[in-house]
Amino acid sequence: MKKIYIDNTPLNDAVEKWTDSLIENGVYKPLEGETVNVIESLGRLTAEAIMAKVSSPFYHSSAMDGYAVRFSDTFGSSESSPKKLGIPVHAVYISTGDPLPDKFNAVIMIEDVNISKSKIKEHEYIEIIKPATPWQHVRTVGEDIVTTELILPENHRIRPVDIGAMLAGGHTKIKARRKPRVVIIPTGSELVEPGSTLVKGNIIESNSRILAGLVEEWGGEPVMADIVPDDIDKIKDSLLNAAEKGDLVVINAGASAGKKDFTYTAIRELGTVVLHGVNIKPGKPVILGWINKKPVLGIPGYPVSAYITFEIFAKPFIYVCQGIRMTESEPLRAKMSRQVPSTLGMEEFIRVKVGQVGENIIASPVSRGAGMLMSLVRADGFVRIPSMSEGIGAGSDVKVRLLKSLESISNTVVCIGSHDNILDILSNSLTKKYPEYSFSSSHVGSMGGLVALKRGEAHIAGTHLLDEETGEYNIPFINRLLGDKEIILVNLVIRQQGLMVLRGNPKNIKEFEDLLRDDVTFINRQPGSGTRLLTDKYLKDRGIDHHKIKGYDNEEYTHMTVASAVLNGIADAGLGILAASKALDLDFIPLAKERYDIAIPEKFYKMKMFQRLFEIIREDQEFRNIVKNLGGYDLKDSGKIFYPAPSLI
Amino acid sequence: MKKIYIDNTPLNDAVEKWTDSLIENGVYKPLEGETVNVIESLGRLTAEAIMAKVSSPFYHSSAMDGYAVRFSDTFGSSESSPKKLGIPVHAVYISTGDPLPDKFNAVIMIEDVNISKSKIKEHEYIEIIKPATPWQHVRTVGEDIVTTELILPENHRIRPVDIGAMLAGGHTKIKARRKPRVVIIPTGSELVEPGSTLVKGNIIESNSRILAGLVEEWGGEPVMADIVPDDIDKIKDSLLNAAEKGDLVVINAGASAGKKDFTYTAIRELGTVVLHGVNIKPGKPVILGWINKKPVLGIPGYPVSAYITFEIFAKPFIYVCQGIRMTESEPLRAKMSRQVPSTLGMEEFIRVKVGQVGENIIASPVSRGAGMLMSLVRADGFVRIPSMSEGIGAGSDVKVRLLKSLESISNTVVCIGSHDNILDILSNSLTKKYPEYSFSSSHVGSMGGLVALKRGEAHIAGTHLLDEETGEYNIPFINRLLGDKEIILVNLVIRQQGLMVLRGNPKNIKEFEDLLRDDVTFINRQPGSGTRLLTDKYLKDRGIDHHKIKGYDNEEYTHMTVASAVLNGIADAGLGILAASKALDLDFIPLAKERYDIAIPEKFYKMKMFQRLFEIIREDQEFRNIVKNLGGYDLKDSGKIFYPAPSLI
Repeated sequence: MKKIYIDNTPLNDAVEKWTDSLIENGVYKPLEGETVNVIESLGRLTAEAIMAKVSSPFYHSSAMDGYAVRFSDTFGSSESSPKKLGIPVHAVYISTGDPLPDKFNAVIMIEDVNISKSKIKEHEYIEIIKPATPWQHVRTVGEDIVTTELILPENHRIRPVDIGAMLAGGHTKIKARRKPRVVIIPTGSELVEPGSTLVKGNIIESNSRILAGLVEEWGGEPVMADIVPDDIDKIKDSLLNAAEKGDLVVINAGASAGKKDFTYTAIRELGTVVLHGVNIKPGKPVILGWINKKPVLGIPGYPVSAYITFEIFAKPFIYVCQGIRMTESEPLRAKMSRQVPSTLGMEEFIRVKVGQVGENIIASPVSRGAGMLMSLVRADGFVRIPSMSEGIGAGSDVKVRLLKSLESISNTVVCIGSHDNILDILSNSLTKKYPEYSFSSSHVGSMGGLVALKRGEAHIAGTHLLDEETGEYNIPFINRLLGDKEIILVNLVIRQQGLMVLRGNPKNIKEFEDLLRDDVTFINRQPGSGTRLLTDKYLKDRGIDHHKIKGYDNEEYTHMTVASAVLNGIADAGLGILAASKALDLDFIPLAKERYDIAIPEKFYKMKMFQRLFEIIREDQEFRNIVKNLGGYDLKDSGKIFYPAPSLI
Repeated sequence: MKKIYIDNTPLNDAVEKWTDSLIENGVYKPLEGETVNVIESLGRLTAEAIMAKVSSPFYHSSAMDGYAVRFSDTFGSSESSPKKLGIPVHAVYISTGDPLPDKFNAVIMIEDVNISKSKIKEHEYIEIIKPATPWQHVRTVGEDIVTTELILPENHRIRPVDIGAMLAGGHTKIKARRKPRVVIIPTGSELVEPGSTLVKGNIIESNSRILAGLVEEWGGEPVMADIVPDDIDKIKDSLLNAAEKGDLVVINAGASAGKKDFTYTAIRELGTVVLHGVNIKPGKPVILGWINKKPVLGIPGYPVSAYITFEIFAKPFIYVCQGIRMTESEPLRAKMSRQVPSTLGMEEFIRVKVGQVGENIIASPVSRGAGMLMSLVRADGFVRIPSMSEGIGAGSDVKVRLLKSLESISNTVVCIGSHDNILDILSNSLTKKYPEYSFSSSHVGSMGGLVALKRGEAHIAGTHLLDEETGEYNIPFINRLLGDKEIILVNLVIRQQGLMVLRGNPKNIKEFEDLLRDDVTFINRQPGSGTRLLTDKYLKDRGIDHHKIKGYDNEEYTHMTVASAVLNGIADAGLGILAASKALDLDFIPLAKERYDIAIPEKFYKMKMFQRLFEIIREDQEFRNIVKNLGGYDLKDSGKIFYPAPSLI
């Protein structure tokens, strides 16, 4: 097999080349219209101007309950000389909406007439005291809609009122723009359908469902192809079939240049390749090509790469097919919370969390790996780092393309600091009880959280820092780091820390001294985390030299990743909380209880969003029960203020 | 039948009473969850916290193409002393995504190894020049998602990436919030299904489809009931049936107190009425009640009343049923273009067009009748006039609740002035060719258009004002009214004006003098319109006293409404353009050709949106053909600049 080399086309050039190719091939234009029922047309786009076929109303009708009259018969009536109109020759009762009988041309409201019976001939008549003006209280033909009038222009997205107006204007079927069909082909011998029994080497096929969801959101019609194994003939069959059915074909993945990457070869043998490789990260190995006059997009397999490249190369085309212009809201200006290095010569797409902390809008990068799907789930937006930049400095101004509304961002609690599994539960309780709020947490350790408060990058910080000298939790650190701010310290829980080991404790680890053994590898937490301080205090108390502990320098950022390292055999023991240990079915050797608090500047503490949050910590029985059932937590002080003394606030 | 009296409850009190009643009856809360397939869950709301069931990846896998090794085997290798690792005992080839064989714990990229064959035993081996760090280029278990980790909180609206993450986390089915079912009952013996053959007295049933569309947009599930005639037993049957099926029942209409209004009685006989009549305009006769523990909403029959009351009383409930908070964007501050009187003691909802003209954001009221569905189609937003106000003065600041995005409003051509059917065609051509723009036109006559330009309320004004003294079109008026502004005058068309009469000209009208006849009623245009000036000039030229013309004081605002008046027998003749006459199949007696121009301030003329517009007038063949085919238009000067002389700009 010939070695395939991937280009490194700059993003703008790639987009231009692709767009030109779509234009040249005559597909970069709105699709034809298709007939749809008006009552099923909500959200569709008109493919023709919709002109009224009938007027509304299409006959003169009464706008009031009252009497239909001829206005000329009412001339001269007044309070001093009322006029009598006989029923039914000169006046007839009429309800709102009833057609006005031909000979009449005005309506007098029921409130303005006296109804009597003539003494002479037992005829009924009405008595009026004011002349009617021509056509008063009459809805004349076409008052709302006149035949031939434009109801909706072409390229208009149909709303509920538009459906009503089209029906009232005599339409039951109209031409709506056909939705572009996007055939999505998942490839890879390792892929299995969701719900399959998993064996090592399997990957649950989920990318195609993300792409399908995006197509739907953008107004297209996703068509799912079956999973194709890494077999060039089968890939070619699927591509040919897709090119027949779709307006756009997307094949995911095999777009790179490895042993199992057949996408490039398949497209080239069936048609032409316009481009292979774009200078972006993540997302480089993109293929743009043509098979049987249908555009084909080969995108990388990592979910973040797939998402980014699909949005860049598929979205504009899907919009053009519908005859609508893609609009992007103005990017939000934010400050980057920490330094983000970037590869010079590559345009990079960084996922960020965005929070409004006081006056500051802060963007914090989330994990950058192209395989980190959760980084997309957690992200509030994207920041682009141009190819000629080596990165973004902490505190720099950046432009964020938001994935959420600005409002939802200003209603988000930004929690930066130590990790505890309870934060997930707290997040869920808040959103469940108060859907208008959300909770975002980043795990950088206790010290990192206090620093974030100092910099105005977080609303609250989870912290469990034990001062070696005083034996006091958190307060000495707050005084040292945040002496100039009004900080309130509220207890979240008292929790159990201990060594996590594999179920059954195969290496028989019982205390810190066992970490010195040759057959034991430790996994540590990062400096600045409360758990690291706890570890170091224990080692110091016992006179253990940490250089002698294998794995002391291997660091993780959360209790769960430490537990994960133990479960996976990367390490034999790590210090952490019972909840993490139980979540991954590990054994737990309890060593200490510690206070885990939330630090919050007073100005935020007073705000409604945070009052709600602490109310949940103090009083919400569902929240408290879930935490109790996790084990290893003591809620006796939860919600209690430890600093400053409660009397001071 | 007992006379029904309608209350006049202030809006806020009514909303509070209704909400209290929903709370008391225990339905003002999120609905239970229902099981849905993850792949069909786009846009749904989670009814539970979604925790990962499996880790992703759930085995250590390679992040690169390369060789799996034990990192301890690589210690000590360097460029000066490379190390050899035998295949397959100490190293094996591995592709991206492949599971790492159990005994290995690092991957060396293919680029960093030499592959050779040993001379001695024909064994393959790789040569490396740098030690591997533990777990390098390995995606360890749970790198993306760790078992038990929170993927999505409860009450979260599911996006495409969320679907991917749930699938990757081992879910195929989840609990999503059940959509609230809203049963919609259309009542009225005059109603017919869309598409029926229409006879006088019929009304095409379209309200229920507007309501259904709104329910869908708000996240509920609309259920359509059959049309029920004005028969109290049938109405009761339908209500009972609906109360069984729905979470909310909406009955439209019969909510007022007329002879055919049975809704109040039906609800009272089957259950209870909480409220009948709210102090708003339009929308007063609302009924709020209960049948078999299900909330029932009776709303008025006029489409605008139905829309407004449905939004006020149904939308918040539908949101609460889904566990989401209704968010409304900040109202837009705008200036009211003209005076709007309002009934003291009634809260009024005014539909407005909104335009951004230079720095000004201008709100202009559209027609106010509750029966004017097109006023909703055309509206960009609502302005509320409090009950204690007698109205809003011209130029007053108002708050507009927008129905469109602010961006689409700033991309809208605001055209105020004389009416011509071509404006609809121009609007459609613009939106068709440039979907990012739209075109809004209000018809207040030529003079009104120039005044709007003067006040900064319009971008362009359609004008055909003939100066009696000079015989010149438009320029004398621009000089007089807009002398201080840089105005450009561009011709749209030269058009034919004439008398419109019924097909076959039954009254044998041939010239203006016929309007003096006793059996002939004229319909006039409003003062300030070019057509009115033309009428008056003709009468003056012929020495006709307008007091002697029957109907001279009856005024309409557009050519189409004049044509409509003739068609409907309200008048026998009116002056207008051929296009309007042809649209309603009238006969036309040509009297004069006139120049219809567009006046535009120079600062707007230069903007891209208007360049596009004039480009269509000058060059777009489709636009020009449609106009030509209408008849009565001459396009020889279309797009030509008449003022100032082209050389000046």
